[in-house]
Amino acid sequence: MLLKHHLSLKQIFSFTWKVDLMLLGCCTLVYLLDTYWLAAHVSIPVAVSAVLGTAIAFFIGFNNNQAYDRWWEARKIWGALVNDSRSWGRSMLYYATAPGNPATQAVVRHMIYRHLAFITSLKTSLRKRPDEYYTRYLTQEEIAEVQKQSNIPNALLNMQTRDLEQLRESGVIDGFRFIELNQLIVRHCDSMGQSERIKNTVFPPSYVYFTQVFIWFYVIMNTLMMTESIGAWAIPFGWMFGFVFHVTHLNGITLMNPFEFQPLGIPLDNIARTIEINTIELLGDEPVPAPVQPRLDGLYVM
Amino acid sequence: MLLKHHLSLKQIFSFTWKVDLMLLGCCTLVYLLDTYWLAAHVSIPVAVSAVLGTAIAFFIGFNNNQAYDRWWEARKIWGALVNDSRSWGRSMLYYATAPGNPATQAVVRHMIYRHLAFITSLKTSLRKRPDEYYTRYLTQEEIAEVQKQSNIPNALLNMQTRDLEQLRESGVIDGFRFIELNQLIVRHCDSMGQSERIKNTVFPPSYVYFTQVFIWFYVIMNTLMMTESIGAWAIPFGWMFGFVFHVTHLNGITLMNPFEFQPLGIPLDNIARTIEINTIELLGDEPVPAPVQPRLDGLYVM
Amino acid sequence: MLLKHHLSLKQIFSFTWKVDLMLLGCCTLVYLLDTYWLAAHVSIPVAVSAVLGTAIAFFIGFNNNQAYDRWWEARKIWGALVNDSRSWGRSMLYYATAPGNPATQAVVRHMIYRHLAFITSLKTSLRKRPDEYYTRYLTQEEIAEVQKQSNIPNALLNMQTRDLEQLRESGVIDGFRFIELNQLIVRHCDSMGQSERIKNTVFPPSYVYFTQVFIWFYVIMNTLMMTESIGAWAIPFGWMFGFVFHVTHLNGITLMNPFEFQPLGIPLDNIARTIEINTIELLGDEPVPAPVQPRLDGLYVM
Amino acid sequence: MLLKHHLSLKQIFSFTWKVDLMLLGCCTLVYLLDTYWLAAHVSIPVAVSAVLGTAIAFFIGFNNNQAYDRWWEARKIWGALVNDSRSWGRSMLYYATAPGNPATQAVVRHMIYRHLAFITSLKTSLRKRPDEYYTRYLTQEEIAEVQKQSNIPNALLNMQTRDLEQLRESGVIDGFRFIELNQLIVRHCDSMGQSERIKNTVFPPSYVYFTQVFIWFYVIMNTLMMTESIGAWAIPFGWMFGFVFHVTHLNGITLMNPFEFQPLGIPLDNIARTIEINTIELLGDEPVPAPVQPRLDGLYVM
Amino acid sequence: MLLKHHLSLKQIFSFTWKVDLMLLGCCTLVYLLDTYWLAAHVSIPVAVSAVLGTAIAFFIGFNNNQAYDRWWEARKIWGALVNDSRSWGRSMLYYATAPGNPATQAVVRHMIYRHLAFITSLKTSLRKRPDEYYTRYLTQEEIAEVQKQSNIPNALLNMQTRDLEQLRESGVIDGFRFIELNQLIVRHCDSMGQSERIKNTVFPPSYVYFTQVFIWFYVIMNTLMMTESIGAWAIPFGWMFGFVFHVTHLNGITLMNPFEFQPLGIPLDNIARTIEINTIELLGDEPVPAPVQPRLDGLYVM
Repeated sequence: MLLKHHLSLKQIFSFTWKVDLMLLGCCTLVYLLDTYWLAAHVSIPVAVSAVLGTAIAFFIGFNNNQAYDRWWEARKIWGALVNDSRSWGRSMLYYATAPGNPATQAVVRHMIYRHLAFITSLKTSLRKRPDEYYTRYLTQEEIAEVQKQSNIPNALLNMQTRDLEQLRESGVIDGFRFIELNQLIVRHCDSMGQSERIKNTVFPPSYVYFTQVFIWFYVIMNTLMMTESIGAWAIPFGWMFGFVFHVTHLNGITLMNPFEFQPLGIPLDNIARTIEINTIELLGDEPVPAPVQPRLDGLYVM
Repeated sequence: MLLKHHLSLKQIFSFTWKVDLMLLGCCTLVYLLDTYWLAAHVSIPVAVSAVLGTAIAFFIGFNNNQAYDRWWEARKIWGALVNDSRSWGRSMLYYATAPGNPATQAVVRHMIYRHLAFITSLKTSLRKRPDEYYTRYLTQEEIAEVQKQSNIPNALLNMQTRDLEQLRESGVIDGFRFIELNQLIVRHCDSMGQSERIKNTVFPPSYVYFTQVFIWFYVIMNTLMMTESIGAWAIPFGWMFGFVFHVTHLNGITLMNPFEFQPLGIPLDNIARTIEINTIELLGDEPVPAPVQPRLDGLYVM
Repeated sequence: MLLKHHLSLKQIFSFTWKVDLMLLGCCTLVYLLDTYWLAAHVSIPVAVSAVLGTAIAFFIGFNNNQAYDRWWEARKIWGALVNDSRSWGRSMLYYATAPGNPATQAVVRHMIYRHLAFITSLKTSLRKRPDEYYTRYLTQEEIAEVQKQSNIPNALLNMQTRDLEQLRESGVIDGFRFIELNQLIVRHCDSMGQSERIKNTVFPPSYVYFTQVFIWFYVIMNTLMMTESIGAWAIPFGWMFGFVFHVTHLNGITLMNPFEFQPLGIPLDNIARTIEINTIELLGDEPVPAPVQPRLDGLYVM
Repeated sequence: MLLKHHLSLKQIFSFTWKVDLMLLGCCTLVYLLDTYWLAAHVSIPVAVSAVLGTAIAFFIGFNNNQAYDRWWEARKIWGALVNDSRSWGRSMLYYATAPGNPATQAVVRHMIYRHLAFITSLKTSLRKRPDEYYTRYLTQEEIAEVQKQSNIPNALLNMQTRDLEQLRESGVIDGFRFIELNQLIVRHCDSMGQSERIKNTVFPPSYVYFTQVFIWFYVIMNTLMMTESIGAWAIPFGWMFGFVFHVTHLNGITLMNPFEFQPLGIPLDNIARTIEINTIELLGDEPVPAPVQPRLDGLYVM
Repeated sequence: MLLKHHLSLKQIFSFTWKVDLMLLGCCTLVYLLDTYWLAAHVSIPVAVSAVLGTAIAFFIGFNNNQAYDRWWEARKIWGALVNDSRSWGRSMLYYATAPGNPATQAVVRHMIYRHLAFITSLKTSLRKRPDEYYTRYLTQEEIAEVQKQSNIPNALLNMQTRDLEQLRESGVIDGFRFIELNQLIVRHCDSMGQSERIKNTVFPPSYVYFTQVFIWFYVIMNTLMMTESIGAWAIPFGWMFGFVFHVTHLNGITLMNPFEFQPLGIPLDNIARTIEINTIELLGDEPVPAPVQPRLDGLYVM
């Protein structure tokens, strides 16, 4: 997640240099082509190319809308994980603790910590970056057990359910508390599956790809047209138009995959850490981990 | 679901060759007509045709928005099926297993496997491709029973409910567990009905059809207009404009029926297999089926 | 619900002949007016009328969006009725049947059939077409009782609730099953009220009416403008522009009232029949009614 | 709620006369200014003003979208109140009536009637029109009690909860019925709060105000531009453009406050009466009040 | 929240003076540049810059839509807090009060007041303005306890849960009432987390930043173009165009952070006070605090 509202020229350049170069190259080429070969033959009416620009602006707008919605949906899912994690810790701690029974209390505390393993392993699997952080909240047997399965966070939820059933069977919790706690596990499972859905569903590539093709169509046509009236000035102005369209399109594309490990993605590290802090403070344990620090001089947080 | 973000020229051509040919034919015809017959009479003001282009861009955008929403809603429904399937397996396994009663355990395991029959038969009925895969998770009697009914997945849900009532009657599950398990069946039923709704409701054909007609109006008018200023160059440029509008419209149309068996549809094979893998791993059974492989050199997955 | 994606010229004409004639009349009039009276005085800049066209395209797009949303919401409500009807039949049959008590079983079967009366009487009241079909699922006393009330489907829900209370009082169902069954009745009630909401709430007429007025403004202005450059050709081109705008607007209007008895409405007959088939197959009764057939050679289904 | 789809010229005029006069005045002024002072100096390129028109059309479209959403959300909230009122009456009548206990039956009937007081007092407080109608469903003590509080419908909900607790304490309803009935009260409370939210949240005035300012900018610029090409004809055409933009904007503004007592608002009188009729018919009481009649010869219903 | 629909010139100026000055400076500079250096070389076709304007209008529209949605979502969350607070007070007071047990009654009353501490401390943490108001509803020990934690409202919810468990353990509330009350705490927790999500998630800065850059591109280009046809008049007209785009963009930006302490934000003071008034009136206590008064002569409420 970017934190700063004003980007330096250097940051803009590092974000766009590739498309800048391609645009300048393309516009220069078109200018030369038009000046030395086409000029006499083709003089496209201005309004015609204007339609193309307007139409493409729509299609970019469409892509951006859907991309933003995916990004915001992803953020909401992890917001729900924060809420449900707090409710899980709170409810387990108070509803499932038979007074004066240390064995049960240990089980319950372990279930609360195991939820942190669920959160951090889900983060790891969404980002596809190898990371064993989640193992710190599990026993050796549990680590061995979950690593045999293809979906680690799901395996952890299965354990939570198994232990909840134990608590119910042994009478530590009654049916009413069982319902409340089970519904939280179902909600964890829903959020996990929703995250995976966004992660695994490719935004229809035909939209993205053809929109890019159309922008290049427009850049060519527009430069062609401007060459006839303003000569070599068509190159910087052609770049400018291309810049506006391509950068807006790129903005959308970076939001399309909100769980990627990149500065514009959802700050999963930060959110997962918040959950850890809230949980460990609830239990009154030490040490409480520090919040995730922004990177690159406060530019973004992961 | 397409997996690649960059299409080769060949893939684009195989996707659009039909409309390309029609466009070139149409533009050539209009060019000839204008040159040899109309030129003297009709010279449409440029801005007039620009309005038409802008208006059509809106209407295409409208269609695409709704088409994308249908596609994403379909994906969400099957995402919910993934989540509820995991919750079903997990809850049945742990909540409905009276310790030390092999008969009950067999019933419960069968109910978990029968859910896989529900998922795969729902997939089959949505895609309308004959496929007996689901029968592997049922007994002969059950196969005979469900095939007598017009809606096989619904018949399977009825069986699940009947067996759940048995578990409740025999005291294996108490009222609280009953509520949690019954609500999962209700959610399966909702997802099934939602999938059928999208499958069976035709996107209003008048929108699709008239938008297509309007695009042809625009292509004709635009070529007519360009012929007057740039002669035969109007043919390639006319094609280009038509290409932008038609391809964007086609993009929308391919998303409108997300359950069709085509590369841009929802990858039901893949999702159903994920459910099978999660379930069989949960039960600790062998062999765990392999994930569905992408086709055509990683181009798409079904 | 229209089923065909390609309309014949005859079908288009039967859908649009009224607006076609009005457009041709209007354009001819404007042409004559401009040629014989105004030409010397008024020559509106092209871009000015272009703005009007663009603005109106927006407002039409706005109407269409909202109209589509109403239509899709209506479809979702009836999709929910399908799902809840299946859950109702399934749950009543298995959860409310005390083994070996024929009297209770008869009550339960009647409550399942009475739900079909609810569905079909709701359909009738939404379409405002007199139809006594629903009475086949009721006793004479019930028919007399509900026809005394102003809202028949609501009266039927009241009966369902009364009988459910009987089952609960007599101990046939326990509190947990009671909750699950009662929540289904509440959902039926919600879907009924949501359908009535869409049926009874007029889409803000000022939007529809003024958009129509604005389209005529545009047609006049556009023809006026084209007459000056292309003479009598302004008539067919004026018609074409008007056709695009009016037909798109009409498309929206036909979706605005999704419960009307017209080819583009929600196919309530078809959906209600699906519910009947599923229910009767569930009960194992005979005869199972046949699905609703499309009309006019497969053009649409009601 | 307007009922008629076609407005007479008189009705249009009564809706728009103010803006019509202002527009004619403004256009005339601009025409005179341009003709006698500016003409020689300023000749704005047509396309420039076209951009302004297009941009403003967007911003109006944005306002209208949000306004419509507020209006439809308001309608949905009151639709939910209809549904929950029916469920409330139905559930109270059948679930809370211990057979053969007249005292309890009287309490329950009063609680059903008190809900009508809740609905009608909520209507009154949303419309801010003094109206004592709701008192007919309350006892003198209750009237005195609620009028001491600042929020009367909320005070009535508190009474419902207090009496529900009484029914639970005295064993008339069991825990399961208690849950179902309490959840209905929570839903009533939610709908009440949602109505108040829409009522009390001013639509961001800066949007509305600046959009209005921008429309005047455009009208001036547009008339200025047309004066140069068509002279005094710029006045009627300038009015027409302004009319299109202002009327569309006004359409949005009238929907923004759906609970105002005005013809385009939500017909709360009508909806509240529907609830009364359904409830009184359910109880079998007399007289059933008559539906609310449309006003002004069927033009609208309040 | 602004309350007035008409802003005075002074208020507009105080809202926009910064951008006004920058625009006038920029336009003058461009005018001078074009007149004394560029005029002979660059004459950009009008329609080209029109495309840019239209495209930017889209992108502004996109930003505004999302900003409005954030603002309205924030308002809905606090609307839900109002509703759930009323339900909390109402349910605690009536469902958790064992008759004739003063100790329990004191606990319950304190839990109702503690909820006010939750609301006001949540407000404080969202606005990041130091404010000890919430402490008035807590005991000294509680204040000490919560201030040790990083998230005060969350710590208060933990206390509510702990005390609810006490009530359940001691038999004051049964399982059914426990479920209803616990679900309210879960909803409080959800609303808290949702508020924090909006507060802590920066709206993608690349959208905001680049849109601003693009507007300046357009202002420059537009002034350049107008200078050629209308000379120094390009300065006021250039300002006007920039004003329309920048002000609309600013409108969006002010809505993006709805929990900021600024006149266009959500009026948290006002909403929190409404909750206090409703709660204290419910308990029949004195004094009932006065509603929050609008500031600056009724211009806005915080």
